[in-house]
Amino acid sequence: MNIYAPVKQNLSLFEKHKATIERAIEAIHKREYYAAYPEMPSPAVYGESAEADQKKLFEAQLNSKFERLKQSHDSFLNSDEQSPFTVEKLGISYPAFADSTKYISAAQAAANDWKKTDAQTRAGILAESLDRVKASFFEIAFATMHTTGQSYMMSFQASGPHAADRAMEALALGYQELTRFPLKLIWEKPAGKVNLKLEKFITTVPKGLSLAIGCATFPTWNSVPGIYASLITGNPVIVKPHPKAIYPIAVVIAHLQDVLKENGFSPDLVMLACDTEAKPITKELAENPQIKIIDFTGSSAFGKYVESLAGKISFTEKAGVNSMIIDSVADLSAMAQNVAFSLCLYSGQMCTAPQNFFIPKAGIKVAGQQVSFEEVRDAIVAAVKGIVAHPKMGPAVLSAIQSEATQKRVEEAKKLPGKVLLESQPVPNAEFPKIRSASPIIIEISSDRKDIFQSELFGPIAFIIPTADTNESIELAASIAREHGAISCGAYTADSACMDKIAEQMAEACTPVSFNLTGNIYVNQNAGFSDFHVTGGNPSGNASLTDPEFVLKRFTRVQARVNG
Amino acid sequence: MNIYAPVKQNLSLFEKHKATIERAIEAIHKREYYAAYPEMPSPAVYGESAEADQKKLFEAQLNSKFERLKQSHDSFLNSDEQSPFTVEKLGISYPAFADSTKYISAAQAAANDWKKTDAQTRAGILAESLDRVKASFFEIAFATMHTTGQSYMMSFQASGPHAADRAMEALALGYQELTRFPLKLIWEKPAGKVNLKLEKFITTVPKGLSLAIGCATFPTWNSVPGIYASLITGNPVIVKPHPKAIYPIAVVIAHLQDVLKENGFSPDLVMLACDTEAKPITKELAENPQIKIIDFTGSSAFGKYVESLAGKISFTEKAGVNSMIIDSVADLSAMAQNVAFSLCLYSGQMCTAPQNFFIPKAGIKVAGQQVSFEEVRDAIVAAVKGIVAHPKMGPAVLSAIQSEATQKRVEEAKKLPGKVLLESQPVPNAEFPKIRSASPIIIEISSDRKDIFQSELFGPIAFIIPTADTNESIELAASIAREHGAISCGAYTADSACMDKIAEQMAEACTPVSFNLTGNIYVNQNAGFSDFHVTGGNPSGNASLTDPEFVLKRFTRVQARVNG
Repeated sequence: MNIYAPVKQNLSLFEKHKATIERAIEAIHKREYYAAYPEMPSPAVYGESAEADQKKLFEAQLNSKFERLKQSHDSFLNSDEQSPFTVEKLGISYPAFADSTKYISAAQAAANDWKKTDAQTRAGILAESLDRVKASFFEIAFATMHTTGQSYMMSFQASGPHAADRAMEALALGYQELTRFPLKLIWEKPAGKVNLKLEKFITTVPKGLSLAIGCATFPTWNSVPGIYASLITGNPVIVKPHPKAIYPIAVVIAHLQDVLKENGFSPDLVMLACDTEAKPITKELAENPQIKIIDFTGSSAFGKYVESLAGKISFTEKAGVNSMIIDSVADLSAMAQNVAFSLCLYSGQMCTAPQNFFIPKAGIKVAGQQVSFEEVRDAIVAAVKGIVAHPKMGPAVLSAIQSEATQKRVEEAKKLPGKVLLESQPVPNAEFPKIRSASPIIIEISSDRKDIFQSELFGPIAFIIPTADTNESIELAASIAREHGAISCGAYTADSACMDKIAEQMAEACTPVSFNLTGNIYVNQNAGFSDFHVTGGNPSGNASLTDPEFVLKRFTRVQARVNG
Repeated sequence: MNIYAPVKQNLSLFEKHKATIERAIEAIHKREYYAAYPEMPSPAVYGESAEADQKKLFEAQLNSKFERLKQSHDSFLNSDEQSPFTVEKLGISYPAFADSTKYISAAQAAANDWKKTDAQTRAGILAESLDRVKASFFEIAFATMHTTGQSYMMSFQASGPHAADRAMEALALGYQELTRFPLKLIWEKPAGKVNLKLEKFITTVPKGLSLAIGCATFPTWNSVPGIYASLITGNPVIVKPHPKAIYPIAVVIAHLQDVLKENGFSPDLVMLACDTEAKPITKELAENPQIKIIDFTGSSAFGKYVESLAGKISFTEKAGVNSMIIDSVADLSAMAQNVAFSLCLYSGQMCTAPQNFFIPKAGIKVAGQQVSFEEVRDAIVAAVKGIVAHPKMGPAVLSAIQSEATQKRVEEAKKLPGKVLLESQPVPNAEFPKIRSASPIIIEISSDRKDIFQSELFGPIAFIIPTADTNESIELAASIAREHGAISCGAYTADSACMDKIAEQMAEACTPVSFNLTGNIYVNQNAGFSDFHVTGGNPSGNASLTDPEFVLKRFTRVQARVNG
């Protein structure tokens, strides 16, 4: 009996990657530390000449056609990409269709075999593609750096190993859910003298064509989980990157297409569909009735539009207004250093960066001693100033500002009500004299100006807000999370009842809290395989990486029973 | 460290039921035969005097107040319930609020402790409630019989053990998902000489107030999975039964409220909110912004309305237009008997009953010999006739018609285009001379009248449709399932390539297929713990019993990290 028999089965790639996939599934279920791809750009791991070789590749790619994609296309489209470091166009063109509906029909035409192969074959091919991507981590780092403005180290880690880990996490959990129930079984029901007997078969039917809409700041990290989750569950994917950040994800797609083609599947199963700011195609694609699944990272306004589209399953990551609740600390300077770094890292352009710092106006206990609000506030401001002014650490941590819009937002922030505690300034970079940069502006604002600080002011803009007490701090942080969304929350308290209260109130707003971070762990960082990211219970989105829902919603289980 | 510590923890009830819950989880993951509650009304299992005692209870309940509920209420509401067997009102009144918003505030007020207790406590209480319900299976059977018109045996099985099994399945899978990841762990990341170390905590946050909207034909079977899925995941539930079928679910709710109260939780956590046909409250409840989850069984029109409500998570079971594809058989009479029984059982009022019988007009192979379309058609008609005419089996299988609307639909069906092969007639019942009954009408209709047979004609109405060949049969069955929904599909074929094709084409329409059923297994029957019911990929609904999605969508995971 071969009901729902897989086509183009390839178990050898699965065998090759089986141990990694199984290890990933184990790590996910223990939520323990695991890295399928080491995060340091170590020559021992990634090859002695890898960095230099790939830098050359990157440089050769500038001002030329990106010819590595195997997908169907009409012509090449000149991209809008521009380096925030050099403020120069990258000059790359990518294969494109003149008409967006052609992506739909090409991807649909490619879907049939993929839909009908098995979880092992898909998992093997997808894991192999990640290994190929690994061989391009340095090129992807340069591409990320010169599209997003991230530092080289963050570009390497976020777009390389951390993104690949998140992709592996999605594919591993997808594989586990696809194989969670037996695909074939004999069902026997006692019925007196003889048993009733049925042979049962279970298959999984993909929901259909998937659209991954990328963002400008994390072009691979935020896109690959959805791409790999859709692919492992059998859905073809059209990837529509941000017009300013195409190159990093194009490299990933090129490797995916290679491995698909080598294994007899159409490269059009995952297509790059790039556009320009002058002629966007996102809405045309999103509204096409053939698109059944949408993964989106970006603004709240566009995210709400995506969620409002009828008949689509959407996974969104929108704006988060993240809070830092400061109640009491063991060491003022350790806290100030830690939160200052979180704010400065990539100039506040991480979705997990803190914006609102709530501090009781009567001050806080520091190692049991009362310290004034002003002292706590000034410690944070001084710590930020220290990072900005540090000749080496400053440019490395703050790096560049991705968009002119963010730079403008920072400039205008000084006009906001409140008192500017620290002005934004350029962050000179010896290597890139033309860099678009802006250090954080910090504004002290009254707790009754929630109308101002409840909005996400994306970029290096922070508020220090004196509150009546920690209860008010919690109330403000939780209500903003409930009403406007939050992706992270930091809290400092030496009091266990207060810790409980913060955890509980923020949980009601479905916001994860990091307590008392000092040293080298920051509220911004979310670990693959262990930390759920954007948990789905507040307006910041529902693209929970990687809760089982993130893969389950992409397919349907169907059963057949045969009288045996 | 006690972040997210449970309140009102009660591990003793969990210990009492742990083995059953774990056995259920095992059965679910093997999809094997399992019954937590034996389906036969055996005195050895359910007690020697249970049937007689509970019949007395039922009789005493008629024409009186239902006083077993512990919920808050203003007064008692006289129900519309009427027995399809006696055509007399049941005369029962139930506690009710004058204003539907009072249910919302009472249920919300009851939610806090339940939300914050743990999965073990919830699972123990819910499993205990099912054991209490078990002690009322006979009363529930009489209540079901005299509201739905089901036979006594079906009433016992469907509303008693089968419903309790489905509830156990939902609670077991809910329990498993809630405890899938560790609630507390130490995360250590190698970082040179010392490890980075965080203590991590995971909690689950319920989505919020749940509304379960019941149907008139299966008042407990279709409602308890959603009720138990919402409760296990921490959500309070308002149960709005069909105004004509309140009594069976009221007994279930009474037991739930008892066990909740005994364990220090508010009985208002699960409330009966009944209404009358003259003054319905379903839309008022459904549209209330506090309602976050809706479980619905009923018409497609109302189901689409439920699905269209913004900001709700909905699980629906709507109309299914179910097909029977007849390609070739080993034994004509065995096939005819089986499909005739499926059509006659509860007079076609099961959501899984077949409506459209597709038979190639050139006839089919029977054990390798060609047999004409007419002969196959006549065998089915004769088998139905045989059941209807059988003095004992007829009334027992066909039983009564739940609503006047269904009876009217059957009467009017003879005016449909096509040739009436078998007329509907009353099914006399010696015990209940006034019974509302109607045997199946069978109409031969041309395959080009898809406009007629693509609609669900709920009740004992069947079409026999001669097709060009089995390809056309499949095409019609699959397109109707895709466009209008299907919950079941039966198929008979002796050809393995044809079997593959049917399975595959119907899988594209997310419809389960039962092949070559003969003897005592019927397409209508879905087994708890093994068969997914309403798989979610076609318009018949998405309340998949019990796919992990059915429980996962009812809560959000949230994490806290503490510097350690």
